[in-house]
Formats: sequence, structure tokens, C-alpha cells
Amino acid sequence: MRALVKPKAGTGMELLDVPKPACGPNDVLIRVHHAGVCGTDLHIWNWDAWASGRLKPPVTIGHEFAGVITQLGPEAETTGVLAVGDEVTAEGHIVCGHCLQCRTGSSHLCGRTQIIGVDRDGAFADYIAMPESNVMKLQGIPTEIGAIMDPMGNAFHTVFETDVTGSTVFILGCGPIGCFAVGVARAAGASLVVASDLIERRLEIARTMGAHVTLDATKEDVTARILDLTGGEGVDVVCEMSGHPSGHAQALAAARLGGRVNLLGTPSQTTEVDFARDIIFKGLTLYGVTGRRMYQTWHQMQRFLRGNQLDPLPVITHRFPLERFAEAIQVIKDGQAGKVILEIGP
Amino acid sequence: MRALVKPKAGTGMELLDVPKPACGPNDVLIRVHHAGVCGTDLHIWNWDAWASGRLKPPVTIGHEFAGVITQLGPEAETTGVLAVGDEVTAEGHIVCGHCLQCRTGSSHLCGRTQIIGVDRDGAFADYIAMPESNVMKLQGIPTEIGAIMDPMGNAFHTVFETDVTGSTVFILGCGPIGCFAVGVARAAGASLVVASDLIERRLEIARTMGAHVTLDATKEDVTARILDLTGGEGVDVVCEMSGHPSGHAQALAAARLGGRVNLLGTPSQTTEVDFARDIIFKGLTLYGVTGRRMYQTWHQMQRFLRGNQLDPLPVITHRFPLERFAEAIQVIKDGQAGKVILEIGP
Amino acid sequence: MRALVKPKAGTGMELLDVPKPACGPNDVLIRVHHAGVCGTDLHIWNWDAWASGRLKPPVTIGHEFAGVITQLGPEAETTGVLAVGDEVTAEGHIVCGHCLQCRTGSSHLCGRTQIIGVDRDGAFADYIAMPESNVMKLQGIPTEIGAIMDPMGNAFHTVFETDVTGSTVFILGCGPIGCFAVGVARAAGASLVVASDLIERRLEIARTMGAHVTLDATKEDVTARILDLTGGEGVDVVCEMSGHPSGHAQALAAARLGGRVNLLGTPSQTTEVDFARDIIFKGLTLYGVTGRRMYQTWHQMQRFLRGNQLDPLPVITHRFPLERFAEAIQVIKDGQAGKVILEIGP
Amino acid sequence: MRALVKPKAGTGMELLDVPKPACGPNDVLIRVHHAGVCGTDLHIWNWDAWASGRLKPPVTIGHEFAGVITQLGPEAETTGVLAVGDEVTAEGHIVCGHCLQCRTGSSHLCGRTQIIGVDRDGAFADYIAMPESNVMKLQGIPTEIGAIMDPMGNAFHTVFETDVTGSTVFILGCGPIGCFAVGVARAAGASLVVASDLIERRLEIARTMGAHVTLDATKEDVTARILDLTGGEGVDVVCEMSGHPSGHAQALAAARLGGRVNLLGTPSQTTEVDFARDIIFKGLTLYGVTGRRMYQTWHQMQRFLRGNQLDPLPVITHRFPLERFAEAIQVIKDGQAGKVILEIGP
Repeated sequence: MRALVKPKAGTGMELLDVPKPACGPNDVLIRVHHAGVCGTDLHIWNWDAWASGRLKPPVTIGHEFAGVITQLGPEAETTGVLAVGDEVTAEGHIVCGHCLQCRTGSSHLCGRTQIIGVDRDGAFADYIAMPESNVMKLQGIPTEIGAIMDPMGNAFHTVFETDVTGSTVFILGCGPIGCFAVGVARAAGASLVVASDLIERRLEIARTMGAHVTLDATKEDVTARILDLTGGEGVDVVCEMSGHPSGHAQALAAARLGGRVNLLGTPSQTTEVDFARDIIFKGLTLYGVTGRRMYQTWHQMQRFLRGNQLDPLPVITHRFPLERFAEAIQVIKDGQAGKVILEIGP
Repeated sequence: MRALVKPKAGTGMELLDVPKPACGPNDVLIRVHHAGVCGTDLHIWNWDAWASGRLKPPVTIGHEFAGVITQLGPEAETTGVLAVGDEVTAEGHIVCGHCLQCRTGSSHLCGRTQIIGVDRDGAFADYIAMPESNVMKLQGIPTEIGAIMDPMGNAFHTVFETDVTGSTVFILGCGPIGCFAVGVARAAGASLVVASDLIERRLEIARTMGAHVTLDATKEDVTARILDLTGGEGVDVVCEMSGHPSGHAQALAAARLGGRVNLLGTPSQTTEVDFARDIIFKGLTLYGVTGRRMYQTWHQMQRFLRGNQLDPLPVITHRFPLERFAEAIQVIKDGQAGKVILEIGP
Repeated sequence: MRALVKPKAGTGMELLDVPKPACGPNDVLIRVHHAGVCGTDLHIWNWDAWASGRLKPPVTIGHEFAGVITQLGPEAETTGVLAVGDEVTAEGHIVCGHCLQCRTGSSHLCGRTQIIGVDRDGAFADYIAMPESNVMKLQGIPTEIGAIMDPMGNAFHTVFETDVTGSTVFILGCGPIGCFAVGVARAAGASLVVASDLIERRLEIARTMGAHVTLDATKEDVTARILDLTGGEGVDVVCEMSGHPSGHAQALAAARLGGRVNLLGTPSQTTEVDFARDIIFKGLTLYGVTGRRMYQTWHQMQRFLRGNQLDPLPVITHRFPLERFAEAIQVIKDGQAGKVILEIGP
Repeated sequence: MRALVKPKAGTGMELLDVPKPACGPNDVLIRVHHAGVCGTDLHIWNWDAWASGRLKPPVTIGHEFAGVITQLGPEAETTGVLAVGDEVTAEGHIVCGHCLQCRTGSSHLCGRTQIIGVDRDGAFADYIAMPESNVMKLQGIPTEIGAIMDPMGNAFHTVFETDVTGSTVFILGCGPIGCFAVGVARAAGASLVVASDLIERRLEIARTMGAHVTLDATKEDVTARILDLTGGEGVDVVCEMSGHPSGHAQALAAARLGGRVNLLGTPSQTTEVDFARDIIFKGLTLYGVTGRRMYQTWHQMQRFLRGNQLDPLPVITHRFPLERFAEAIQVIKDGQAGKVILEIGP
């Protein structure tokens, strides 16, 4: 079968012919239809410090996908939940199931997590084998949307970590996850959703997703605007999606006394923090967002998508067949893309 | 009456003869019996950047106290809750009662808070007038203990912001509030309480208050010891009481995946934070602790004290009559003191 | 001034000429513009067991209102929050401020609550005096809407006691509060809102407020329909607004395993409950709703109303001048009314 | 091997020689050392309405146990968590892992739960096969204690559903689970623990477990005493362990305004409830307790037991070898027993 592989240390990826993965007793084999390209894949392509420290090539890339079940392992079959022909997506974090975190409702923080497309073979391929317990039926959600439920789940996790209904929310950074977050916050009844970015094209998508106000951080004093928009109070909730030290500074300044800052953007540098002024005297709560709550986040997402409470399609800006993966990487590098999809099968 | 006053900009304080405060319609007048000396009072004595930026001399110092009611304003009388002769203590944060924070259960974060002994006349005096709604009856708690319920309340707030029952807890910094926190965590059923400090005398008090393990940060690798003590996991809850950048680093490193860091110690410098490694990938929650929850914290404290679940007396190391206030300041400067009490009346 | 008074034990009310109320030091005096008529007022008119056990005539009736401030007591003036000419509404529960409930975030459950129009003079009058701390500025919300924020607040309290975003919600009973609850649940992003009643006219209002499905309990097996609509699971959240034993039975049967039942409708009879089958084995949580959270509920409501997230106007079906109060009572008795408004001033 | 079996419909059980259970791919085989006898086993012995409606004989009885692993299925082996020779106990609820409840943190409420010793072969036997994910290492906890972690877990679940630290708690019913609950509440820092029962012998055990006050419901007005002990307020938390309508009445009357009632005792009859007076106007929250939270409850229990925060031994009053099972049933019938243990192996 075809697989987009990081064959060895160094930049780039290669489309190779590799054997179909084996389907273990507790696994299901899935024919991939659509897959999403993520910033993480760009890091892997670039073979930056994080990627070279973590990946052990050769490894098939890709962790956002949806497709159709073609085979079930004998134990997976006994549960009677999944069947050949089911359209499915999957949580890409494969967790140990036994540690404190897994046993107490935080398996998204399992210390032994294996991420597909990073720590083991991933989804930019014709087939992928997944543990049955990670796989969910789409039941009417198109596979193209199913393929982006992983990053959309990051947005749900970030936004829903606080009750945003009736709240003022600041989405700081309008990459695909930030844009999903705008839509999620609106659908959940946030009273004011402000989004900021450095790139006008992304702010345009944020507006389409329902942002009440968008701020171009290259032209406006973001913190001052947030205070203006909230009667000088600051917002109830900040979703930090930029991962830049300047984003952290704005996030802490924009949150009101007693506010909440949910941090998803992962910076590559440290940030200088004035704990007294910006966290302690303000009584702030900060929360670091990793992955998706397994599987509360997925259920919320299914409810929203099946109830037509959220239309994520405006975030998808590009679609490429698997062979044109290099172009997919390039449009992300260019910074003008929303979500980029690979069309793989059938 | 006597009052310990910061008369004008500059170091030091003076014991002056001043008029008894007026008792407004909603106020009660209290004869002060005992008062606690706090690190804040040392900042005011030293007239450091914070103090000189905030205080408007002349102002009577002191915000931790207990005493006996001698007069009630006419409106305070109508509620029928307090009476002349009642032994009482008081919350020293006088809040506006109308802002978003005051109206939604976070008046400890009111942006218009006036702190006694800082923003208005305080308790190192024979009498103090307080709004009736800030005053609580001691009902059997001695005034000496009543006088330290303000800092003890900081400890309750910090510890109880998370459910510590059955948890592993690291109290980082064993000043008076840290030592109270040790006792509170033990009484609440924490499974492991580890305390660290740089000064052996303070660790001794922490052990008396029930710490299972104390770590001398001048001699031991605190983070390594915490990991050892928790099977390599890290602790569920860190209470950061030191206010030092090195304390922040230890706090973030000592917390387990999905752990909680409650920050009380107020640093005078910034801290460099690796948000990705130390907060986001660990899924941590950070919370900045200001004051005491009004008045949940006070109720918890009264329950613990009246039920003999916590004996705070070992934390009190020095007692001075009001006239010897300079000695009280000096023993705090020396760094070997626990809680220091002024004996003021009757 | 004019006041609608229950002059003595027995049915009916009388429109009398009475003195303008005195404005105490902590009070504000309000010229009433609009007032809402509530089921409670019908109980008082009818002088039923509850009313005759609680009211001490003569008492001016009415607890839902909005108007304009005409005077402030001297202490109320000092806070600088309210001013003559402000359009305002008020929380009608006047609480003690000192009990465990008041001090720990549950003043809506204060055991010494005085309800205006029940325990002290109310708002069906030209003027009412209210403690300043109970009064809130409308800031653009029309007084007609301000006058129904009390019952709308019951709906917000009932719905928001659980996170309904992405949830399936069953509103059982479509009186005015049930109809508000439909709108609140929709605006908060509930994925499915089902409403039931015995009267078609009320179901019509519920549909206007956004119910996905309405069930006529005189014609349909409500529990069976709920199970059908939820794939046999039952709903996540039930809001019991009927106060009838048959409503309780449906509520417990309609909730899913691990579901939530928030109870607002106050029955006049007892209900037989199978605790094992209906609560314990289902792992249900039940919550009794009294009043409005003071003042979180009010803030949520202001956010929703100012953000145009909820239009309560379709629930108002009748408006009468104060003189025609008997007609107002009659249309409520007839059971076909939504919310009924008295136009009092200016 | 030996197994205590309900061979067919009707009263009694039989000790039979049966084949050792097969160990599936995801299973572990456990040599049972100790097992606990539960009220449920008495229902099964008596073949009452519940038992005859649910069990499909022949079935081996027993759901509380601990022992040593003797074999691992091939998939269970791959996780590397458990090994032959490990002392273990197990959660006896085998859940589907795929339903809404299982996927959102409430697998204790899975609608497809199979309980060992009820729906499939249980633990009153020399060996039992269990899914690996249900099995936990004892790591120093003796198997005798491991064998009663199932009912002790019910107590932890009931008590910890609310934060009892600094709270007043009423444990209504002092069977083994009630007595465990007394110890759990004390260890968690409850300020007042009152326990009631009809049998003096049980109250004696409750006192040994730390109850501040015990009430003999045959001699005292329990509700009046609770009000006396709480200054007329009522308690913050009631744990209803009796399962009798009179217990429900006392529970609702004993809870304070805004209090919490956690219901574990499963009644065999209905209870008449005055929803208005006893739940709605009091703002109560009721919660139905089923099983143990999987696996938060188990972790809390392990922490408490390993930290010596709870000594459950005083609750064990009788020990019998497997052959004398009829005596074990009899002492439970007699109503004077605490926890009864079967000594099975090795």
C-alpha cells in the first residue's frame, strides 16, 4: 500500500510502497479516506529539534484521519460495537490504560502515550490499524469532517474546559484550531467572542466562524481593544492558541480578575512571567491543554456536528490527493491556509 | 488612643496618640486584644517599592487582629447578629459589593478592595472600626488565635482550592502560612505532605504541624526527592508559598501530569516559564491565591478550629506588647520567627 | 400612592391608596413602571393553604418589577453605584447576609429570607423601597423585560445548574418559566430541547422559543417519545417545571443513566418515589431549585439579554394597566396565558 | 476446583466441584485467597424477587475478593502491568467500554454491566478469571483487606461524592458500608460525624471507626438530635445507608438548607416524598450511588489504606472457611455481624 513516510533523519517525507499493517486481536484495520495535515506534520517535515528528538524513522506520518473499517481482530469482534463497512474516525493518542492518569479520567495525559504518525505508524497511508477502543463511528458525519475531528477536538477541549456560556471569550491565534474554537464558543452561547491574529486571511475565516470582533495584532493594541470591548474588565476566558511569548503576555493581560486562561499553543521558547502582578493578584486560573478528553470531548463534538450546531467546513481551505503532499506542506508553510486535507481513498 | 502609624514616606513606624475612630452607621467599633505581624508589615516598615507605591501616609498599620465589640452603628444594630461584648475577628479586605467579582462569588478579587492597615487605618491600635459585614464572632476561639485567622485563611484558601483528601501535597516554603498549610492538609486527610524551606527552624515547625517529610532546600535536590517520594510521578498538588523564581521552577517540576499548582507566595521579580514543557504538555492547572474566599474560607476555618482539627499554636513563636513593635519587626527580619503576635489590649 | 393589597385574610385583593414607603439609610426608592404577575400571586389571591399560612395582611402584593430610582438613602448614596434616574430591577429575596448559606454562596437559601409581595410590601404599587444591594441597573434592557427577570432568573437557575451545552434537555411543563427555559437551553447550545405540556397554546410558545420537539402529554406517551428521540438512552438533563407527581415520574424515567433532574415546579402533594430503581441504580442527581443564585444568575441573564442571545418577548401574552388586575389574575387562572404584565407607571 | 454455586432457582447454595475457568486473551486467572460476603449474597441465597428476576443459574456466587494471579492471557501479558504472583483485587463490575456512560467517566453506570457472582461466575471459588483492566495490584495491602475493597469502595464513593472536609456528616445506617463510611469521613477531616442504627452492636463498631456521636434510632428522635447537634441547622451531608423509607424521611429532614443527600441503601419499597418542602424549598441535592467510580474510587482507597489513614479491620467481625458458608450467611441474617469474610485459599 501507499504510505507517506519519514524514511530517515532529515527534512522531507517520501511516498513509499509498504506492507499493509497487521490487525492485532484488539485492533481494527481501517481504509483511510481523508486525512488532515497538521502543524506537527510540518515540524516533522522540517525535522526540527522536537521532531528529531522524538521520532524514530522510518515512520508513517499522519494522525488526523477518517475512513472505513475493512477488518476486525477476533477480540475486537466480540464487543459487537464496530463492523466491517463502518465509517469511523479515531483518537490518535494510544494510552496505557493503567497509570494514575488513565485510571482517574485523564488518559489524555498518560505518560506512556503513543501518538500515531509520531511514535508509531500513522494515517497518511491507504490503511491504518488502530486499537478498537480508540475508534468511533461517524454515523452520518462525512469522512472529510471526521478527518479533522482530532484538531477540532483540541478546540473543544480548550473552549469547554471552562463554562463559556454567557461569557466573554478571547481566542488568541486563528490557525485552524483557533478558528474551530471561535465556532465552538459561539455555538456554546458565549456572549462575546473576540479573535486575534497577525494574518488577515485567518481573521476572515474567524469572522466566517462567527467571531463578533477580530483584531489584527499587527495593527492594533490587542490588550487595549479587549479592555475597551469589556468595559475595562478584561474577558472571562482566554484561549491561547498562538504559542508565542507575546501571546502569553496578551493572554494574562486580557483576562479579568478571577478569569481563566486555557493554553493550547505550544511555544518553542520560554516566556518571562510576572506571577505576582499577572496571576496571583488577579486570581487567575491557567490550564494547559493536551489532546482531547477521552472521550468526553469526542462525544461533545459528535453532538455538535450531528445537531448542526457547528459547521467546520469554512476552515478547510485546501484539498490535495496524497501524491501532492509536498504542496500540502507548502501551503501550510505559507501561513495563508486554514485546514489542509489529503484525499487518500478509496 | 495608641496607634502604630506610618507617619510619612520613609522607613520605620511610630507609636502615636490618635483619636478613636468614628463608628459609621453600618460599622462596629472593636477594642483590639491581639494582632498578628505579617511580612506585609515588614514591607511597609522598609518602605519598599510596593509600599511606597500603595500607601498614603499617615496610616495606622496592621490587618490581622481580634478583639471585643464596644459599639455598634445604628444600621449594624438592626441585623441583630453582633452585640457589644462579642469577641470577634474580621476579614481585612473591605470590598465594593457591586462589581462582577463581588456579585459572582469572588469578592476576594474585588478591584476596589480597601485593605485595612494598607489602604485605610488598621489594627495595630487600641480600637478599629470595621463594616459589620466583615466581622465574625469567635465563639470560643481565643482572641490570640482569632488574630491570626487572616494568614491562616490564606493557607486554607491555598490548600482547599483543590481536594487534597487522599492526595500527595508539596508545601513549598515554611513561613507561617506554609506551616499552617501543612496542618490544614494533614487535617484534611492528605496522604503525603512534604514541606521544604531554606531554614531548619521553619522545617522544625512544619514537622510539628504534621509534615510527613521535610526537605532542606539548601542541602537537598528538592525536585528529585519529590519524585522519589511519589514513585517518579510527582505530587498531585503543590502549594507555592515561597514567591521565588526557583520555587516556581520546583513547583512546576514537582507537580504530576494533570497536577495542580496553587500559587500564594508573591515574588518581587519575574520568572522564566517553559509553558510547553512545564504546563501544556503536563496538563497542569495553576491558580493564583489572593486573600480568603469571603466567607467560605472563614467558615471552614471556624469548623476546623472549633472541632480541634487543627492546632495553630506551634506556629506562634513570639509575643510582644504593642510598645515593643520594633522588636517584633526585627525577629521577622531575622527569618527565624514563625508567627509574631502583638498583645494590645485590654 | 396606589397599591394592590391583600387587606385581610380571604380571597381577592384591593387597589388602595396607601402612603409612599419610607426610604431607609441603605435603601433606594423606585417608581415602578412594569410588574409581572406570577402563579404565586394567584395563590395569594385564592388565599390557599400556603398563602394563609405565610402572609400577614395587610400586605402589598407583587415581586416581579422594574422601574426608575427616585431617591437614595444616605448610606446607599455613598457606594456611588446607583443614582436617581437609573432604570433598575431587583432581586425580590431580601436575605440576612450573615447565616451559613448567605456566607457561603447560597444566599438564595437563606433561612431568614423576606420575599417582597409576600413577607413585606411588594411591587404592585407606584413605589417600592428596596435595599440597595438587591437593586441592579438595566442598562438598556427595557423595563418591561426587567420586570420579568425574576421568573426568567428561575429558568436560568434551573437550566444552568448543569452544563447543558451539547446536551439533550427535557423541559417538563411550559408555563412562562418553562418557556424561558426552552430559550435559555437553546441559546446555551443544547443539542436537543424537548418540551412537554398539557395545553397546546403553551407548546406553541415553547416552539417559538426554540423547542426542537414539543410533546402534548394529553395525547402522547411522553416517556416513550423521549426514549425514541434519544436512541433509547433518555436525556442528559430534565428541568421539572410542572410540580405534579406525574411530572416527577416522567422526569425520573426520562433521565438517562447518570443524568440530572433539576426540580423547580412546586407540588402541593407528595409523590411516591422508587429510590432504588429510579435514582440509585440510575446514578441520578436531583437538585431543588429555589430563587436565583445571588447574583450569578442575574449576571448570566444580563449577558444573554444584552447580547441578544435570548428574546423573551414571545412569552409575554398579556398586558394590563394596574387597575385591571382582576383580569390579569383571571387570564392566568384560565391557563392559556404566557407571562402577564401590569403596566403601572410612570 | 471448589465453587459455591446457586445451582438452580430456589433458596440456598451448594459447594460443588466445577472446572477451573478459562483465561481469555485479555484475562488474568486469579487464585482466590479471601472473599467478602455481602447483603446481596443473602438476597441470592433467599432467592427473593430481585435475585430470581436477575440470576440465571447455575452461577458461582461472590463478588468481593482478593487473591494471587496464576495466569495471564496473551494480550493481558503485552501490557506489562500485571504478572503471575501479584497479589490483586478487582472491580466486580465488568462494563462495555463503549457506551456514553463508559466513554464519559461514568462506567460505574454502564447499562451493559455484568456483575461477577450475579450475571457471570463469581469469586466464592478457588479460581476466577477477570478482564485484566478490572484487576489492581494490592502492593502491600493484605488480601483480607483487598477482599473488602468492593464494599469499602461503596463507602468511599458515597462519602467523597461531596467534599466532607470541615463538614458535618450524618451516616444513616451502620451496616459494614456505613461503618466504613464513618472511618472515611473522619479520615477526610469531617468536623462532626454522627451515625445512627437500630442495633447497638453496629453503633459500637461505628464508634470504634470514629463516630463522634451515635444515635440509637429505636430510642431517640434522630432528626431532633441532629438538629440539636448542629445548632438547629441540620448537617451538610447525609449518607443514606439504610434503604428504608423512614431513613429517607430522616435523611431529607436532617440535611441543612443547601445540603447534600447521597443515597446508597437500596430500598425494596417506594417512599412518599414531599418534593416542595423537603427538596425544592431546601435547595437540596440528592445523588444515587451505584458501585465505585472506575477507577478514581479505587485510587483514593489505595491511598488511604497505604497511608494508614483508615483501619477497616474493626468492621470485620467473622471469618469462616469456604466450607462453612452456611454459617456465614446465618450470621448476616442475624443482623449482629459487621463484615463477614470467607477464607478460601491458598
